[in-house]
Amino acid sequence: MLLDHILKPRAVAVVGASTRPHTIGNDLLKRLLEYGFKGHVYPVNPKGGEIEGLRAYTSVSELPDGVDLAVIVVNAKFVLSTVDECAARGIKGLVVISAGFKETGGEGRELEEALAAKVRANGMRMVGPNCLGVVNTNPNVRLDACFAESLPVAGDIGFVSQSGALGGGILNILKDLNVGFAQFISIGNQADVNAETALEYWENDPDVKQILLYMESIPDPANFRKLATRISKKKPIVALKAGRSAAGASAASSHTGSLAGGDRAADALLKQSGVIREMSLKDLFSTAKVFANCPIPKGDRVAIVTNSGGPGIMATDAVCEFGMQMAPISDETKAELRSFLPAAASVKNPVDMIASAPLEHYRRTVETVLADPNVDMVMVIYLPFLGLKDIDVAGELMRIRADHPEKPIVGVFMTKSEFFQQLSEMKVTVPFYMYSEEAAEAFCRLNQQRLWQARPEGVVPQRPMDEDRALSIFKAAAAEGRRELTTRESLEVLDACGVRTCRSGMAHSEAEAVELAARVGYPIVMKMTSKSTSHKTDVGGVRVGIADEAQLRTEYQDLLAKLEAKGLLEGLEGVIIQEMVKSKRELVTGIATDPQMGPMIMFGLGGVFVEVLKDVAFRIAPLTDIDAQELIRSVKAVKLLEGARGMIPAQMDKVEDTLLRISQLADQHRFVKELDINPLMVSDKDGEPIAVDARIAIDVDAVKAL
Amino acid sequence: MLLDHILKPRAVAVVGASTRPHTIGNDLLKRLLEYGFKGHVYPVNPKGGEIEGLRAYTSVSELPDGVDLAVIVVNAKFVLSTVDECAARGIKGLVVISAGFKETGGEGRELEEALAAKVRANGMRMVGPNCLGVVNTNPNVRLDACFAESLPVAGDIGFVSQSGALGGGILNILKDLNVGFAQFISIGNQADVNAETALEYWENDPDVKQILLYMESIPDPANFRKLATRISKKKPIVALKAGRSAAGASAASSHTGSLAGGDRAADALLKQSGVIREMSLKDLFSTAKVFANCPIPKGDRVAIVTNSGGPGIMATDAVCEFGMQMAPISDETKAELRSFLPAAASVKNPVDMIASAPLEHYRRTVETVLADPNVDMVMVIYLPFLGLKDIDVAGELMRIRADHPEKPIVGVFMTKSEFFQQLSEMKVTVPFYMYSEEAAEAFCRLNQQRLWQARPEGVVPQRPMDEDRALSIFKAAAAEGRRELTTRESLEVLDACGVRTCRSGMAHSEAEAVELAARVGYPIVMKMTSKSTSHKTDVGGVRVGIADEAQLRTEYQDLLAKLEAKGLLEGLEGVIIQEMVKSKRELVTGIATDPQMGPMIMFGLGGVFVEVLKDVAFRIAPLTDIDAQELIRSVKAVKLLEGARGMIPAQMDKVEDTLLRISQLADQHRFVKELDINPLMVSDKDGEPIAVDARIAIDVDAVKAL
Repeated sequence: MLLDHILKPRAVAVVGASTRPHTIGNDLLKRLLEYGFKGHVYPVNPKGGEIEGLRAYTSVSELPDGVDLAVIVVNAKFVLSTVDECAARGIKGLVVISAGFKETGGEGRELEEALAAKVRANGMRMVGPNCLGVVNTNPNVRLDACFAESLPVAGDIGFVSQSGALGGGILNILKDLNVGFAQFISIGNQADVNAETALEYWENDPDVKQILLYMESIPDPANFRKLATRISKKKPIVALKAGRSAAGASAASSHTGSLAGGDRAADALLKQSGVIREMSLKDLFSTAKVFANCPIPKGDRVAIVTNSGGPGIMATDAVCEFGMQMAPISDETKAELRSFLPAAASVKNPVDMIASAPLEHYRRTVETVLADPNVDMVMVIYLPFLGLKDIDVAGELMRIRADHPEKPIVGVFMTKSEFFQQLSEMKVTVPFYMYSEEAAEAFCRLNQQRLWQARPEGVVPQRPMDEDRALSIFKAAAAEGRRELTTRESLEVLDACGVRTCRSGMAHSEAEAVELAARVGYPIVMKMTSKSTSHKTDVGGVRVGIADEAQLRTEYQDLLAKLEAKGLLEGLEGVIIQEMVKSKRELVTGIATDPQMGPMIMFGLGGVFVEVLKDVAFRIAPLTDIDAQELIRSVKAVKLLEGARGMIPAQMDKVEDTLLRISQLADQHRFVKELDINPLMVSDKDGEPIAVDARIAIDVDAVKAL
Repeated sequence: MLLDHILKPRAVAVVGASTRPHTIGNDLLKRLLEYGFKGHVYPVNPKGGEIEGLRAYTSVSELPDGVDLAVIVVNAKFVLSTVDECAARGIKGLVVISAGFKETGGEGRELEEALAAKVRANGMRMVGPNCLGVVNTNPNVRLDACFAESLPVAGDIGFVSQSGALGGGILNILKDLNVGFAQFISIGNQADVNAETALEYWENDPDVKQILLYMESIPDPANFRKLATRISKKKPIVALKAGRSAAGASAASSHTGSLAGGDRAADALLKQSGVIREMSLKDLFSTAKVFANCPIPKGDRVAIVTNSGGPGIMATDAVCEFGMQMAPISDETKAELRSFLPAAASVKNPVDMIASAPLEHYRRTVETVLADPNVDMVMVIYLPFLGLKDIDVAGELMRIRADHPEKPIVGVFMTKSEFFQQLSEMKVTVPFYMYSEEAAEAFCRLNQQRLWQARPEGVVPQRPMDEDRALSIFKAAAAEGRRELTTRESLEVLDACGVRTCRSGMAHSEAEAVELAARVGYPIVMKMTSKSTSHKTDVGGVRVGIADEAQLRTEYQDLLAKLEAKGLLEGLEGVIIQEMVKSKRELVTGIATDPQMGPMIMFGLGGVFVEVLKDVAFRIAPLTDIDAQELIRSVKAVKLLEGARGMIPAQMDKVEDTLLRISQLADQHRFVKELDINPLMVSDKDGEPIAVDARIAIDVDAVKAL
């Protein structure tokens, strides 16, 4: 169900249909008819009469039974009343093409809210307003309720576009590339139906084998994440999210009424959800093409077959740069290749058949290489040489593909664009690219999807925490109107959450100091806290590296003696006894709150390097255990943690546990707006991560309202 | 002159011309005739008779006067005797298409050496062997002595390809893109003519306005650098260097007889020489197209004009990601745009004219934006909307370009490939791309050329050095057969070169220690050197942070007392008195020798971070002063040197001086194979860079041979 009324309607009414050429009301009706919609089409126009050979109804209320979908192209001010009529007539599906809503601000925004409320109240579903329409190419439906430039080509892509114009442009280009789609939804202002509705609708739709998204904003990140994480395991989801740069985001915010979230948050969200992110339309198309024509491979070992050395080298460079392996072709395969290729050919990977290779060599070489169990994917390069035609080689590859559907094959054809033009009029079953970098990137996407499907789903663990203790600290700060907790309070919250913090306490006598130090563990640091702090250094107010009880007693007595000599004894409040953490590796972790995506967990290398080298990464909270592992491994500094240069390895399970605990804090207490643990020291002694300094900021009002 | 005999011949002989279709000897002759060579063409074939309607000469010796170029397509074994005949007949230019030389190894290599020697001995110039041929599209020449698939399109590119097949493929695609070229040389095995010969030949050739190179190896890096550095100031040089990955390099080494140099060395060389490096053919073409149709801009401020919001956002993202600025459009310009654009349009950059924009709006908007002094380059985006034709908008842009030749304009046309097909048959004066990322990258290349042209040439300074002292250290090590110098020797060599090293010396008495410490400067470190080193810690053999003479005397006496008490006094050889350098910032610098490119200077962040974060960069020696500045600024850690987080800034002039001095050492003494200064500490006191530890490796035989 969900969107069946809209995408698989029995009959469609076009409200605002028109006889006037080059109007949307005319174009859209024509399109519906031209593409051969399988149900009835009813034009609605107050003037009645005949439009495009069909009787026009003067109002929605007159329409016959069985209309599931009304496509509305009337002026914005008539949209609400039209929806009322549709509701009265029992029409459950709406596509509102009309503009003049949220994107115009002020009154338009109010109008849109009223529209959305009406749709909800009547149990209807609506695509738009301010959109390009919808398409379903299923031969039993053939619905083209869209005013894009070209008629659709059928295929297996489900495509959602937030930008109407760009969506139309993309449909154009997909057609040109001979990449067909199953269904298209231009969500426009997404007042009701949005990308998530589409994801859910397509989850089990056998017509849709991959999902493409063009997005400028993600209105409900948590729901998007939940759906995308689940559905991307079944079919690839590929997204182009525009508005990456600050300037681009500012341009996006004035476009289609969207407000761009910070890009690093969006990037983290897509990564965690298994969505393949593309940075350009070109890459989006390239990826769509490979998913449309190739299976998911079993591994990342690529074999290259070429009739020219130079392109083979460039392809090898590209395969390596995209993080895959050059397949180690077996000796048996080499011997087999050697048996028919000329002496000047090279039978190691890349296999260079040399310029004289006839069609027969292409066939035998590709089949031989495909049969090698060391090979997961095959890239076939063709350069035009006298006698051998591009289109013949392409045909041969498609025949081979039909016999060997289990391994991806792509073609790199450095030939004239005529060839690609020719392809666009054929039934193509192998993706062809002009350049080896495009083919390598396409393989990389297949491999990415393979890895994602194999990735364990992970769980968001619930660690036991001392909630009451943490809450009482938050409440105390909020009661005083303090947004920022003190270091002491922040570390105590972390301790309550089960994060290992630097142990410390205050002692007011030698006996207390000794007892505390025994609990904290030697070596320790002793810091005087006094009302006359300005004299701290004169008396040795901070004493580091105290190794045992005897030394502690000596230092304590010495401190008191010095204070007494200077007449400062009565200012003394006590001494802080603090665990002394020795560490060559400082990390930083914490919580940042993105206005769109909510709390994110940050992790990276600490110290001066945070700012300069920016070796930090983010994930959206809550983290699964797998997210935490990936977050740690996504920074370069992870090698330091694993024990580079003879350092003892960090206790990675405890680093993960730390991230999971602050993620739980962030997720369950949204009033925690910021947290910085800086440094999180990796102890030189045993590799344990210890929070030495921390700072938490809260939403005071939210805490008060608890 | 130089290559005039080859590229501007009066008459051409084809030696090995044939009547048999689909042979190179036939195809090549046909091509020469078909393309309308302006001079005489003489086929040579021992059988005589007539070939392609021309009288065939039975031998080279029979040829009439005035033949400047012989294109040789005979079997490899007849090439040498053919060259003898050419020499006897006074022919100075040769293009040897024939394969069977160096690329086959063994005997082929010897044959090639004999061929090259013969060419030199006779004062001839030769392109090839094992090549595709040469082309000159100048209307007074019209030489197509090449067996690529398509006839050439005239333009202003000089193109050198090391791979014959790929060269042909590139010519094909350039034709498809309607990007013409002036001259083409397929250098093949480059036994005589190579990329450098072509660079020099084209330096002052007005037909050639940009130079494209496809390279797999750079045989003479020093000469390439000299020529490219000079010529790239006059015209852009764009290179695709394949064999970047280890696997790609290994594939390259078995291809066209080349041996791939390490890629980071090649990358440094191209950077220093002002060569624009492309990583894919796609980018090579994209760049060629923009240089062929745009002037070099005055700055990097880009304005975007679009009829659709989404593509405007994506273009903005791309402009920012390629490191350029979004032009801050002036208020006057905004007011002017506001005067004719509809209310829903956006007049800030990107300027969104909205989908309804007619041709007239394109014209006025682009002209208005072009006139803004805050704008250096304009990207115009078109998406097809009802009524407005792509080809009309393209025509309008070309008209505007004719009136405003001073600022680059590019078109991003997200339309059908038919449009680009149409363009390929027109005279095009504006570069059109399908995607905004391509256009942004093209602008980035224009900007890169602008910056290179503005970059001072720099000088390789000659610092005074104590050559004799350095040489005596090298010779002493070589005499002992030691490839590796000791730390002490290495630091002394650096000192002789004028590099600031950590001061130290050996003292044998308290008085000597005191005197030495005064010279070294407090604070100092005192290290005992003793035959009984195993007891070093027992007696406090290393004493750090000695602040003044009094403390030194106390520590010295204490050391002696402890040694005496343990009966170890007689083992004492002396104490090393060493300057104590305090530093939070460790750098690493040195010399590495690339087998192809020779000595390179390395610079980066030191400590554990070298291996993990790989924040290091390379330049080929000798460095100019500008190279040294750029090398330092090319690592991320430079921010630490500039004084991030309140640290005192490093003395950058002294860091530069250090690099220049080791570059001078590397350049003038090629027997220095490796040098590591690790760490080069930046003193916390005054920011001075100080070499604290160093290691030099030499070529012992080369030093002995001095």
